[in-house]
Amino acid sequence: MSIAVYPGSFDPVTLGHLDIIGRAASVFDELIVCVMVNSRKSPLFSHEERVEHIKRTVAQYPNVKAESSEGLLIEYMNERGARIIIKGLRAVSDYEWELQMALVNKKLAPNIETLLMPSSEEFTYLSSSIVKEVARYGVDLEMFLPKEIIGDVLKRFESNGWR
Amino acid sequence: MSIAVYPGSFDPVTLGHLDIIGRAASVFDELIVCVMVNSRKSPLFSHEERVEHIKRTVAQYPNVKAESSEGLLIEYMNERGARIIIKGLRAVSDYEWELQMALVNKKLAPNIETLLMPSSEEFTYLSSSIVKEVARYGVDLEMFLPKEIIGDVLKRFESNGWR
Amino acid sequence: MSIAVYPGSFDPVTLGHLDIIGRAASVFDELIVCVMVNSRKSPLFSHEERVEHIKRTVAQYPNVKAESSEGLLIEYMNERGARIIIKGLRAVSDYEWELQMALVNKKLAPNIETLLMPSSEEFTYLSSSIVKEVARYGVDLEMFLPKEIIGDVLKRFESNGWR
Amino acid sequence: MSIAVYPGSFDPVTLGHLDIIGRAASVFDELIVCVMVNSRKSPLFSHEERVEHIKRTVAQYPNVKAESSEGLLIEYMNERGARIIIKGLRAVSDYEWELQMALVNKKLAPNIETLLMPSSEEFTYLSSSIVKEVARYGVDLEMFLPKEIIGDVLKRFESNGWR
Amino acid sequence: MSIAVYPGSFDPVTLGHLDIIGRAASVFDELIVCVMVNSRKSPLFSHEERVEHIKRTVAQYPNVKAESSEGLLIEYMNERGARIIIKGLRAVSDYEWELQMALVNKKLAPNIETLLMPSSEEFTYLSSSIVKEVARYGVDLEMFLPKEIIGDVLKRFESNGWR
Amino acid sequence: MSIAVYPGSFDPVTLGHLDIIGRAASVFDELIVCVMVNSRKSPLFSHEERVEHIKRTVAQYPNVKAESSEGLLIEYMNERGARIIIKGLRAVSDYEWELQMALVNKKLAPNIETLLMPSSEEFTYLSSSIVKEVARYGVDLEMFLPKEIIGDVLKRFESNGWR
Repeated sequence: MSIAVYPGSFDPVTLGHLDIIGRAASVFDELIVCVMVNSRKSPLFSHEERVEHIKRTVAQYPNVKAESSEGLLIEYMNERGARIIIKGLRAVSDYEWELQMALVNKKLAPNIETLLMPSSEEFTYLSSSIVKEVARYGVDLEMFLPKEIIGDVLKRFESNGWR
Repeated sequence: MSIAVYPGSFDPVTLGHLDIIGRAASVFDELIVCVMVNSRKSPLFSHEERVEHIKRTVAQYPNVKAESSEGLLIEYMNERGARIIIKGLRAVSDYEWELQMALVNKKLAPNIETLLMPSSEEFTYLSSSIVKEVARYGVDLEMFLPKEIIGDVLKRFESNGWR
Repeated sequence: MSIAVYPGSFDPVTLGHLDIIGRAASVFDELIVCVMVNSRKSPLFSHEERVEHIKRTVAQYPNVKAESSEGLLIEYMNERGARIIIKGLRAVSDYEWELQMALVNKKLAPNIETLLMPSSEEFTYLSSSIVKEVARYGVDLEMFLPKEIIGDVLKRFESNGWR
Repeated sequence: MSIAVYPGSFDPVTLGHLDIIGRAASVFDELIVCVMVNSRKSPLFSHEERVEHIKRTVAQYPNVKAESSEGLLIEYMNERGARIIIKGLRAVSDYEWELQMALVNKKLAPNIETLLMPSSEEFTYLSSSIVKEVARYGVDLEMFLPKEIIGDVLKRFESNGWR
Repeated sequence: MSIAVYPGSFDPVTLGHLDIIGRAASVFDELIVCVMVNSRKSPLFSHEERVEHIKRTVAQYPNVKAESSEGLLIEYMNERGARIIIKGLRAVSDYEWELQMALVNKKLAPNIETLLMPSSEEFTYLSSSIVKEVARYGVDLEMFLPKEIIGDVLKRFESNGWR
Repeated sequence: MSIAVYPGSFDPVTLGHLDIIGRAASVFDELIVCVMVNSRKSPLFSHEERVEHIKRTVAQYPNVKAESSEGLLIEYMNERGARIIIKGLRAVSDYEWELQMALVNKKLAPNIETLLMPSSEEFTYLSSSIVKEVARYGVDLEMFLPKEIIGDVLKRFESNGWR
């Protein structure tokens, strides 16, 4: 059985992430979306909230799970018996960083393969950071975010005094 | 069952291709290496020869087959019941062309996904064209090509008057 | 009055070109789409045919004209009193070549400015060459080409023995 | 009448910015240089100071104005009746970010077009950050900054204890 | 006598740096590895520690020295009578930043030349930051760092509470 | 003694090449400019003519020689006792190809190092091909080519019927 892991920050999960999730879910037997906890960054949402956001938006895919991990990705994968890392691919700078991480992971765990999935064209330029950039100006977030989480994002922005 | 197709010219197949083949074979249930026939190019080896070269070098992988196709990749895949295209990824220019082809294939066949697999670091800069470039100067080809086909490549170069 | 020139091969004109034409027409007082004749290449369509194709597809824009030029772009522009070159921008390799041409043109004609217009996302990966690549396999061309010229393109492909 | 907006941080305005301003001023009827206020960054100069710096250096161009905006660029443009965003283009990383912003702005305001103007070759590698990097070492700033603001920049560096 | 300077942060020095040092040492009469002090960043190791780390690992090369500098690179070079800057080159983003710095240095000191040395393939994707990223998870550092400094790095990570 | 080789097509030699030659000549004890003969391309000038062109333009540098080679670059270098390859570096696509060649040469001859020298900003976008592109339209070649060879280039263009 092919188990793939889709790691990321998902702070918050966007329509671009959801596009990758849906397409990867159709290609692998099981897909685990894994929120990677980075203790040096202060995220908009806690990792528990982010896992819960993803769960809300992937209800339609029976073979997709959402979890979080505080450790090294490849250790998490070994625990789950997963051998495939899925990453979305948009611009040139993504490409470089993903190649670098793929080679480091390959060195640390030679049996794990990274596969890069090109973003669908309508999400080529969508990222969590650009959403955070524009959200503060009151633009309509339905173009960027799953409708299930928009309320939460707006609330968090308000409580941060961002709008 | 997950069936992936690895399309290319393979003129000739290199150690870089073989690296992708071995790694993809470990991740998918079945892998078909498909020599794409391009009537506008004059290759070093006929497509029958190239299929035979690949067969010789993949004998160790029971779930790998080699074939050729003269038509559109996505039609070939539909005939084979395959939904996954695997491409190796090296430099930035690969990246752009592969993204472009992935999006066009997505448009023509929305159910087919392209997955890009980063080259192992020792093959990052290996390509069929660079092999053809250096082969004519009499360098040792074992660093670049599977040993099973080196004799054939040298013979072809001599009969072309290239060395 | 601001007159912009949109130079290119347009062999054939695609929906991507048409997107740039429509958007540039809304921004400048007059837009001249100029088929640049390159005596070293053998095009699919003669430059007269290409000008005629463009005319057919831009009928809706009263401030757009189509012409061809055999000489240097900047001389053509001086004759027309135009000071703005418009180019579409898609991938990284476009970007490099367009920057190089922009700087050379700036050197030859310091009063002429090149402005690059990013492709709309749905045409990011569309080019005349990729159309020629897929057209020979009988795929539906309506996703790539203006409907006014599809008949002509199919006929030319048949008479070339490409399908 | 064609009104273009050139948005940026301009912290401080460099000879590279001034090159874009002069060239854009020659191509559009009116050019508004707009200092975008970003509440999350702590700039070297306040936005009022930056607007004043730009005013000092563009006195020679009657059709150039300098303003600042705290909101979303596209709202500012709608208020001003401007439909054209002008951005300078230097290296590959500029190119990616500017494409991303152009597509997001296109999504938020379909009637607004972004046009990218390649930097003149002598300013290809000049940026506000590289100026701040070298300025602290006492190098001659005339190669990088308009002479009208050099005194102010030196004073600010000293009061910050940077030199 | 050709004196080259290899400037950087070296926080900490990696096997990738050591590869460049060994190769540059074989090409130039004298090589000075220079830890550049950046007062705005808080490094993992002080600049004195970093110089000492480098000294430990380059003992085998009689023509290599390690020093640090708080000022502008080109002033340091003039003091040392050095005219060549050596930088390692890995990914596209390196390439852009190094080109930018090379041109700025050329402008400030026309007699100084920057030469870029491509990383050996096995170190193409190795950087001090990726080492810091993975080190906190307890992975084996011998693949990334000179063995002479691994003990120190582990100790610093523990005292920072990173593992 | 440090001997560097600057290999290339030089068809024809441009001011950009001459910039690299002058700067490399100031850094290495001896510089050999080597016209690489590629039997598959039909050049504008024979390799003897190109060597002669280079000789004419480098008369001012006593430590620069011009030669040609029909074989593998690294064999040529071993014959000359040279261990350093110098290449000019302009755009991203240069960068990729030069990295690829550098790694292949490193594999074939581990004792030979490739050093990349960034083009001076005024020649960033100058290449032999762009000169051939614009030369046919009668533009002034003094901006692009050494004055010593302009007469020859014009004559060759006329005899080719290009102008």
